[in-house]
Parts: sequence; structure tokens; C-alpha cells
Amino acid sequence: MDPNHSDYIYHLAVDVGGSLTKLVCFTKNEDHPDDGSQQQRDGPGRQMTAVKATGGGAHKYADLFKERLGISLEKEDEMDCLVVGANFLLKVVRQEAFTYMDGQKKFVKIEHSDLYPYLLVNIGSGVGMYKVDGDGKFERVSGTSIGGGTFWGLGKLLTKCKSFDDLLELSYRGNNRVIDMLVGDIYGGMDYSKIGLSSTTIASSFGKVISDNKDLEDYKPEDIARSLLRMISNNIGQISYLNALRFGLKRIFFAGFFIRNHPSTMDTLSVAVNFWSKGEAKAMFLQHEGFLGAMGAFMSSDKHGVQELLVKQAEQPNPVSKTQVPLDGEFNADQSIECIFYEA
Amino acid sequence: MDPNHSDYIYHLAVDVGGSLTKLVCFTKNEDHPDDGSQQQRDGPGRQMTAVKATGGGAHKYADLFKERLGISLEKEDEMDCLVVGANFLLKVVRQEAFTYMDGQKKFVKIEHSDLYPYLLVNIGSGVGMYKVDGDGKFERVSGTSIGGGTFWGLGKLLTKCKSFDDLLELSYRGNNRVIDMLVGDIYGGMDYSKIGLSSTTIASSFGKVISDNKDLEDYKPEDIARSLLRMISNNIGQISYLNALRFGLKRIFFAGFFIRNHPSTMDTLSVAVNFWSKGEAKAMFLQHEGFLGAMGAFMSSDKHGVQELLVKQAEQPNPVSKTQVPLDGEFNADQSIECIFYEA
Repeated sequence: MDPNHSDYIYHLAVDVGGSLTKLVCFTKNEDHPDDGSQQQRDGPGRQMTAVKATGGGAHKYADLFKERLGISLEKEDEMDCLVVGANFLLKVVRQEAFTYMDGQKKFVKIEHSDLYPYLLVNIGSGVGMYKVDGDGKFERVSGTSIGGGTFWGLGKLLTKCKSFDDLLELSYRGNNRVIDMLVGDIYGGMDYSKIGLSSTTIASSFGKVISDNKDLEDYKPEDIARSLLRMISNNIGQISYLNALRFGLKRIFFAGFFIRNHPSTMDTLSVAVNFWSKGEAKAMFLQHEGFLGAMGAFMSSDKHGVQELLVKQAEQPNPVSKTQVPLDGEFNADQSIECIFYEA
Repeated sequence: MDPNHSDYIYHLAVDVGGSLTKLVCFTKNEDHPDDGSQQQRDGPGRQMTAVKATGGGAHKYADLFKERLGISLEKEDEMDCLVVGANFLLKVVRQEAFTYMDGQKKFVKIEHSDLYPYLLVNIGSGVGMYKVDGDGKFERVSGTSIGGGTFWGLGKLLTKCKSFDDLLELSYRGNNRVIDMLVGDIYGGMDYSKIGLSSTTIASSFGKVISDNKDLEDYKPEDIARSLLRMISNNIGQISYLNALRFGLKRIFFAGFFIRNHPSTMDTLSVAVNFWSKGEAKAMFLQHEGFLGAMGAFMSSDKHGVQELLVKQAEQPNPVSKTQVPLDGEFNADQSIECIFYEA
């Protein structure tokens, strides 16, 4: 968040996860005349004393917040917040859900009556999978420990990359065929057509390393990053599909900070869901993918009437994306919800 | 196989996989009087000209075998062989299938009438999953690229271990809590009891590495190996369970050379299946886990009457296990099927 901005923060919620803190706040621009309302003001001139908080860190750091900042964290359940956030965004934001295939992002309008049930896959450090049947009606049905933390953790050990974003950027330039054992490597360049496995299907992630007479330094970091990304995205796509199948869910929404709108992550997830479901299930993504939990915590004490708000997205320290995503309905131009994240 | 042994090899089959070659042969001991039969003899005094072969390498190396050794590989389909091998072993060998929990290996007698349907999970370099409904009746229903090749490939890059077995051995002494982000790490030592996640559940494999200010050299190789093994075994267990659930299968047989009777691999697979199925499904293992394909290829031209044979297992170069596994029925003491594997 720009520290020099002239917005008042009226209302704030945080989602303190395993590796990132996500923040959603309601701001009102100084330059606009005050509307004279009696809303509680947490901006300059008034000390903030309580903040809605979710994620594991809301428990872990509650004492620290109180002690150091004098702020009480009002804990909201992580899963409740996630689902409330997802439902809110899917219903209220006009361009929220989209498909991604072959480099094409396509927004999808989903009728409220046709939204449920769906599978929500939240990819943070780990991965949680939720079957959502309606407002407040959901169940955690599965998950996997192979998530964003695995990508970044293994990537850090293998490539010496200094940040998650560098690693993602690196993967974009890599070639996983140097690292992975493909069906064609086992079958001498041939497909195993009997079971629909083409020669380029990955038979064994990192499997080519076995027979190479090479050390870690002999591999290009970008190839390793690419292989890691393919392995993890494909696995998440597969487990998601198997859970969607189990409950007869046609739509899978992928969210969480692992994705970061990264083209090859979204492509791999989409291809995996398409491959395993033989085209029956659809991978979808959310414009505000990382902020579901924080948004849900924010909503848990909404005093502003969300239909009137504007959602915009910003990144720290220098906001790179200020695209305003219009909500269905009316809003005041001086008011907005900002979504910001901080690294641990 | 001991090159100095005095057994004649009468019949041979190979399974050439992504990283290992498995061999099954029918031998007859020299010291015993010949039974005078007119069986074709591929031992000394007779040139072997054709060998039953399966696995990707049967295609990849067919020309090489012909050119260098003058041997034609008679290719048998990999999946057919796997399933024929599994069905044969499960029906004929008295102590073949066992469960493994808390360090306890328990052989299970399965009635022929109660064998089908089952899920066969073959963990080689990659992982194949097969729904088996009877003799010759099966379907490949799933698989994952995160298999033995991933364990060994990533392990080689991360630990500088020189062999798969060294890596397994190393993992036995490691502590994955140093590497993995546990639920308790996120929740400040607390469980997330609402969804049945204890504080020791792995939330993110390799996730703790994110926030550590350490390089690869600062971690103990054994801890990394342990974390890798847990990650991969747990993932295979989970995907297997989801597929068993999908088809209503109560028994999952894990086979393939990844396992190698390794206690913590079997334990993790068992715990994963038990955890995800809430005790409904059962993980089982096979005494001749690595030889299903080779055994199936061998069976495809069996001339010896399998009920009369003895199965024993040996490893190269110095056989460590000579345990004879008695078959149901009669056999001659001088005849045996040997199971041997060679590294790529």
C-alpha cells in the first residue's frame, strides 16, 4: 500500500497465512468531500483497536499484535472466510471468474442460480479443497501438502532463486523435457497409444535426472523451475478433478496466491483438469484469487454495503496493478476496497 | 544372478522399465538328475534366440538386442503383463499379499472368489493405477508422474546420494519436521480440529524452507530424504484412495520397485489410505512387488506348469534374499523361478 496515499482506512481485515499476509481494506479518498456519515473511522485521528483476522497467523500472532500494537485480532474461521469471500466475489464482481486455455483468458458470466455446487481449490502454502453448496454451506473434502510452499521451498533449494516471483519468472523460460522422463523416453520416442498416453506425456517428474551423469549445477535453474511448476500444478489439477468427480461437480475454481495469474500455472491446471476429466470438468480462475480469506474476514463485519463498493487491486511496495474491477450495481468513485499482500 | 551358479536357464522373461530391468527365469539345478523331458533348453549348449519382454525398453532396445546379442525380444504389452503377474502371484503364492501398519507385517489370505475387483498401483519411475476385474479384465484408470523416479531424481539433486537404496536408507534416519510446514507451524502449535487436522499433519511439503534463512548445504540430507519420501508416498496413497473410492474398490495393492519393502514407505502409504478413506480402504503390499511385469511376460509362454514351480527372490550382484516362498500345490525342489533386477 502506498504509504503516502491520502485515503482514510475505515475498515480493515487480514488473512495471515503460512507465507503471506493478505489485507483487504475499505478506503475513502481524502480529496473527496466527506459524505457526512457517522461511520466509524479508523484513519488518522482515530486509533484502530480491533481488526478482523483469519488464517493460521490470526491464532499464532494474536498475542504479538495485542502486545506490540495494542490491536486485538478478532478471529474468524479460515474456511468460513474463504468461502464467504469466494461467494461474494463470484456473485458481485462482474469480471471475476475466467477460464484460461492456450494463452486465452476468457471471462465467464455465471448466473447466481447456476453457481452451486462447485469445488473451491485454495492453493496457498498447502492446498485446501472445499465443496461449496451455498452461502455458509460447505465442507472441506480434501487437500494436498504439495502446494505453493512446495514449489517455493524446493525451488529455493534447487535454484537459489531469491523470491517466489523470480522462480515463477524463471520457470517461464525453462524446458521441463530436460528434467522429466517422458513416455517417449521410455518407449523410444513412441506413444503408448493403447492408454492414450502421447510420447510427450510426463511419465516421471524429475525422472530423467536418474540416468543423467550430472550434478545439480549442471542443470539450468529455469528447466528445474519449469519441471517443478508442471509437477505441482498437474498434481493439484488431478486431485481436484478426482474430488470434483466424486461429488459430481462440473466447475473447479482455483484460487490462492500460488497462481498469481501466471500463464503456465493456469495452463497446466486447465490442461490437467481437461485431460483427467476428458473435457467434462472445467478449470476456472478468480481475478482476486489471493484475497478470498481476507475478503471473507472483511465481509464478516461489513458496515458499508458491498454493492456500493469498488474493488481494486494493489501490490506492495509499488502497486503495479490498479485495474478497477467494477461491481454489479452502484458505487461511489471515492470509495474502494483495496487488496494488498505482504511477504512473510 | 550369480554368474557361477550351476542352474540351467530354461525360460526367461524381462521387463525393461524406465530405470530398472527386471528378470524372471525358470531354472533347473545341474546337480539334480535331468527329468528327461523334451523341454526347450536355453541353458549351456543351446543358444537363446528369443526372449519374452515387456516395459518401455522392450520397444526402445529391441533393435539393440537383435544387433548385439542376436536375440529377438518378443514384446508383450506392459499392462497385460502387470495384471497377469499380479493375478498369478495373488492366486498361487501362499504368502504374497500383506498389510503393513505400525511396523507390523501381516500376511493376508485372500480367497480366489473374493479377489476381484481390486486396484493395482504400480510404482515404478512413474505410477500406473489399474482397476482389475478378473483374468485379462482390467483398465488403466489413473496414474501420476510423481513416483519412484521423482524420489530418486529429486533426491539425487538435493542430497548427492549415489543410489536409490542409499537415499531410502538415509530417509530412515531423517526428520521431516525440519523441512515440512506442519499445521502446528501455521496455527502456533494448535490443531485445526474443526477439520480433523492435527498439529503434526503436513500442511506444506518443503514449506518450512520458505522462511528459513538457509541454503541447501545447511539442511541434513537425511531430513530432506525423509520429507521427499513422505511427500511422494502420501501423494500416491491419496490418489490411489480417490481412485479406489471412485470405483468402490476396498483393496489397493501397491507394487513396483519404489517400495522395496521399505518400512516407512509402506507405513506412509498405509497411513495415507487409512487417513483419506477413514479406515474404509486397505493398503496391501506384494511380496514380489517389483516383478509383476516380468512375471506376466514369463507367464505368457509358460511351458512348465506354474503350480509345480518354486518362487524365490534374488538380488544382483550379491543376492541378499533367498527366502523361498512356497506356492500352493506341488513343486520339484530342483526347479524354481528366480526374480532378479538390474539397475540401468
